[in-house]
Amino acid sequence: MRSQDLKKKEAIFEATIKLVNEIGFAAASVAKIAKQASVSPATIYIYYKNKEDLLVSIYVEIKKRKSLASMAGFDESSPLKESFRKVWDNSFQFTSENEDYFQYAEQFTNSPFNDLVDGTQSTEIFQPFVSALESGAKQKIIKKVDFDILAAFALHPITILSNVRASKDINMTRKNITVAFEMAWDAIRLNKD
Amino acid sequence: MRSQDLKKKEAIFEATIKLVNEIGFAAASVAKIAKQASVSPATIYIYYKNKEDLLVSIYVEIKKRKSLASMAGFDESSPLKESFRKVWDNSFQFTSENEDYFQYAEQFTNSPFNDLVDGTQSTEIFQPFVSALESGAKQKIIKKVDFDILAAFALHPITILSNVRASKDINMTRKNITVAFEMAWDAIRLNKD
Repeated sequence: MRSQDLKKKEAIFEATIKLVNEIGFAAASVAKIAKQASVSPATIYIYYKNKEDLLVSIYVEIKKRKSLASMAGFDESSPLKESFRKVWDNSFQFTSENEDYFQYAEQFTNSPFNDLVDGTQSTEIFQPFVSALESGAKQKIIKKVDFDILAAFALHPITILSNVRASKDINMTRKNITVAFEMAWDAIRLNKD
Repeated sequence: MRSQDLKKKEAIFEATIKLVNEIGFAAASVAKIAKQASVSPATIYIYYKNKEDLLVSIYVEIKKRKSLASMAGFDESSPLKESFRKVWDNSFQFTSENEDYFQYAEQFTNSPFNDLVDGTQSTEIFQPFVSALESGAKQKIIKKVDFDILAAFALHPITILSNVRASKDINMTRKNITVAFEMAWDAIRLNKD
């Protein structure tokens, strides 16, 4: 893709998130998004079939960016607790720096559009971490439970704790991020006692 | 309040949730909500100042119902793990039986309306549980951490795991509810090892 095209796509990406967060899915028309992005509506239709395709693609792109950021520097040869900590810190940083992405994603997940998403792509990026967890379960380092349950304790607290809107009263200092990480680890590790 | 009034308020409550979940906050007008509830728009204005007041009040009512349901049969004289389990099971049942309330609440929390909410009321209902946790921390049964961090592991996983939309692939059987509870307990309890 040419650099000019990439710039336009990025402008549409940012504009869609901004507008949807401000006025909601229903009111955010392609015309309004185009205006916000300083492109013509026709330009949007070069990249996206329709509004639905646009909204779904933006969500998929957010998930992809989050997955890539979370997995940066992931080393499967490290001890599981260490590589988990890497993903934890990465995710925390990404979510806290991209509050607007998160707001869009939460609205999206709770909308009927969510049924249109094929989750395969970001799952692939996460695969080395998923494999590390599976192998940790086999080695009896962590509990052998459904991945969704594992994720509810290992990954979802990040989303909650780094969401400024949902956690008004908490300041996620470096110390609190560590405290929360140890709790996540305690939840998933296999008890020796 | 007369029984006729209660019925009308309940109809408005259900209609608002149904319509907002279907068409979103922006498109759900008072006129459409009135039609859905089979009342006149004037009736809505007897109970609510305006659309904003209506949307906020419905959210507050959902939180209140959830808090009351979660705390049903809570006994502060029970051991902490037992009384926590009671809240856990109650919350699970309520959330899974009221998927539509949850969908509304998630959308609401991630909207600008959320800034208008005074959280005091449902906090009061939860107070016996919060006190039990605080006293558990003092007795060195559970970790001494910020309540928001505690809640991210002790309460939020319920919301995630009982949300059919977010957890498409998981079947929260009685066994899985117990597995997840033990993970929550491991996250918050003070390690002896």
